[in-house]
Amino acid sequence: MTLDDVRARDGADPLRACRDRFRLPDGLVYLDGNSLGALPKAAVARQREVVEREWGRSLIRSWNEHDWIGAPQRIGARIAPLIGAKPHEVIVADSVSVNLFKLITAAVALSPDRPVLLSEPGNFHTDLHVASGAAELVPDLRLETAPRDRIEAALGPDTNLLLLTHVHYKTGERFDMAGVTRAAKGAGALTLWDLSHSVGAVPLHLNRDGAELAVGCGYKYLNGGPGAPAFLYVAEHLQERLLPTLRGWMGHAAPFAFADDYVPAPGISRFLAGTPPMLSLLALESGVESFDGVDMDAAWAKSIALFDLFAALVEECCAGHGLECITPRDPALRGSHISYRHPHAFEICQALIAAEVIGDFRAPDVIRFGLTPLYLGYEDIWTAVERLADILETGRWRDPRFAVRGKVT
Amino acid sequence: MTLDDVRARDGADPLRACRDRFRLPDGLVYLDGNSLGALPKAAVARQREVVEREWGRSLIRSWNEHDWIGAPQRIGARIAPLIGAKPHEVIVADSVSVNLFKLITAAVALSPDRPVLLSEPGNFHTDLHVASGAAELVPDLRLETAPRDRIEAALGPDTNLLLLTHVHYKTGERFDMAGVTRAAKGAGALTLWDLSHSVGAVPLHLNRDGAELAVGCGYKYLNGGPGAPAFLYVAEHLQERLLPTLRGWMGHAAPFAFADDYVPAPGISRFLAGTPPMLSLLALESGVESFDGVDMDAAWAKSIALFDLFAALVEECCAGHGLECITPRDPALRGSHISYRHPHAFEICQALIAAEVIGDFRAPDVIRFGLTPLYLGYEDIWTAVERLADILETGRWRDPRFAVRGKVT
Repeated sequence: MTLDDVRARDGADPLRACRDRFRLPDGLVYLDGNSLGALPKAAVARQREVVEREWGRSLIRSWNEHDWIGAPQRIGARIAPLIGAKPHEVIVADSVSVNLFKLITAAVALSPDRPVLLSEPGNFHTDLHVASGAAELVPDLRLETAPRDRIEAALGPDTNLLLLTHVHYKTGERFDMAGVTRAAKGAGALTLWDLSHSVGAVPLHLNRDGAELAVGCGYKYLNGGPGAPAFLYVAEHLQERLLPTLRGWMGHAAPFAFADDYVPAPGISRFLAGTPPMLSLLALESGVESFDGVDMDAAWAKSIALFDLFAALVEECCAGHGLECITPRDPALRGSHISYRHPHAFEICQALIAAEVIGDFRAPDVIRFGLTPLYLGYEDIWTAVERLADILETGRWRDPRFAVRGKVT
Repeated sequence: MTLDDVRARDGADPLRACRDRFRLPDGLVYLDGNSLGALPKAAVARQREVVEREWGRSLIRSWNEHDWIGAPQRIGARIAPLIGAKPHEVIVADSVSVNLFKLITAAVALSPDRPVLLSEPGNFHTDLHVASGAAELVPDLRLETAPRDRIEAALGPDTNLLLLTHVHYKTGERFDMAGVTRAAKGAGALTLWDLSHSVGAVPLHLNRDGAELAVGCGYKYLNGGPGAPAFLYVAEHLQERLLPTLRGWMGHAAPFAFADDYVPAPGISRFLAGTPPMLSLLALESGVESFDGVDMDAAWAKSIALFDLFAALVEECCAGHGLECITPRDPALRGSHISYRHPHAFEICQALIAAEVIGDFRAPDVIRFGLTPLYLGYEDIWTAVERLADILETGRWRDPRFAVRGKVT
């Protein structure tokens, strides 16, 4: 494998043109799109329009004139094809944490005689924190965890709801959504999937796989901007059976009737609560539009190829430096990032950032590289591993400045 | 009172220069800043910087480099002086609805033997919907309401938490925060104040008045942009006693340790949940900065003068057309908007909008005019009432196009 080979692959990449949809700083290799997606060019113009024309000039009239009021449903419907759902099964609102809380507390009420909310240890911690809070609040509900290889064995007549993250934020391991959902259903339990590290990268077929409930992140592969609102999915057949406990006027059947009594809106809209943060919400719309015309199977095929190239180059160029790949090599068993364990992961990550290769560190000892098929090329992977190898060969990561921690590390 | 008198008052207005902090469309009289505040000029430049430089160029590094991670506390601390609180008693997060839910569910747990969550009928409906959801979820809690003149009589040994909106969204009536909080405390109950229609206009002294819990809106008088995140206040002495039930990683004591077990952050930060919507959050920072150097007593004095002028001109110019003022004339008993009841409020409001005077309609029969002291002048009030009088005199509001309802009405 030579640089020429790699460039030839970029030249033949059917998704190459998608890179032009993004503003990426010159010289930077950005392998953290699984944490914060890059800036779509369309978002720059759109955000100016939203701020200066819609907020500044149309002011309150924008709720009607620019259909701000319809944005949660409209953007949800645009996310739906990316996850294999119907347009009216998805809505954008709040954060992943808040949406998890909404769905957990509404779903467990369907089976009050089943006391167990089941998850896995090491799930993304916000999922476990939300679950613990819900379990403390809901009478007779308790949170239990089982390691992923014993999840199916742990399902039983006590299981109310299974809460899992589809692609693990650290290792990149991926659950078999269809199989796990089927097993839970067989035990009489619902499943709630967190798609934060899946949506926009990994093939998703929620309807086909029988998924009942899901949430997902807007600011990772969806390129919705920092802290973009999240989405939630409720299968059509469950929507009218779930009564939200975390309520708000935007999820009322008639928000502008200002009635004292709560009447849930029909369908997915009942899962709205307060007024959505419009600047962030409309930036997410630009992010979702960055997938316009993209064949998600082609995106996944490219993710696989980027992963294989990354793994092969690390094996070839970084051998003997203690990097241990913790992400499964089988594409069916993983997401779209590759992670390595190393005792000095933090310092190596900082040295990479100084060398204009952005990955991220996940405590205590993992470096994670996001492989975003829309805007990464094969040459980016080549450059990243070349710089990584150099940092390891020279031991430059031992420079004390790379041990300095920020607030976010 | 002549137009010259009114212009002379504008010339002598000590807050006149604040108007230049905002972009207001030429010719428009914007009396809806209590629903969506006007665009601060600083927000235009700041939002470009946040999108293009911070998101686009610094990307994930902005969490440290541009202190995105500290924004909820930093902006909270900037709101604190506007409400008479200490900087570490306020934090910005989520929406008013979600923050109400957080505080209600955490606060009622302090007195599990007290079953009543008390509010008033006709409170802003999201407050009642959130309260009803919390009451259904928390064992042995029930929502009761009492009209405002019987609230104090309704307080008793069963009262757990009193939930009130300080300034009523429709009528503009204002509670005596100190007196009501004292009465609730006397009965052994906590009080949670919704400051959505107060903050940025009405004098607030939460510490002095003994307030324990509060939430407030970022997109009204604070000029934070459409759907701006909300804030919440917890008095210092209560912070460590409240255990959030709606949790998330941002409220964890060590968010980047990725630990399974939930440990609440010390102090006000525990009331964060998920990742905040940064574009909307940083626009709110510009909104709050529009109050820099503003003496809130001077702002309130101007609000009173704007109100008195509005009321006097309506009495003089619109008599006999059926407008009934439903806002108390005594400034101590009201907020910063003036509302009128009229059987054709909707059509009159639409005719005003067509005449470039933006107020808003509140079902079933109220027109509401927000009096924002930072960017309204006395001549704006003159112009608004002149156009209102013309619409009533000519009966132009009867034009069928003014009866057409949008999604948001």
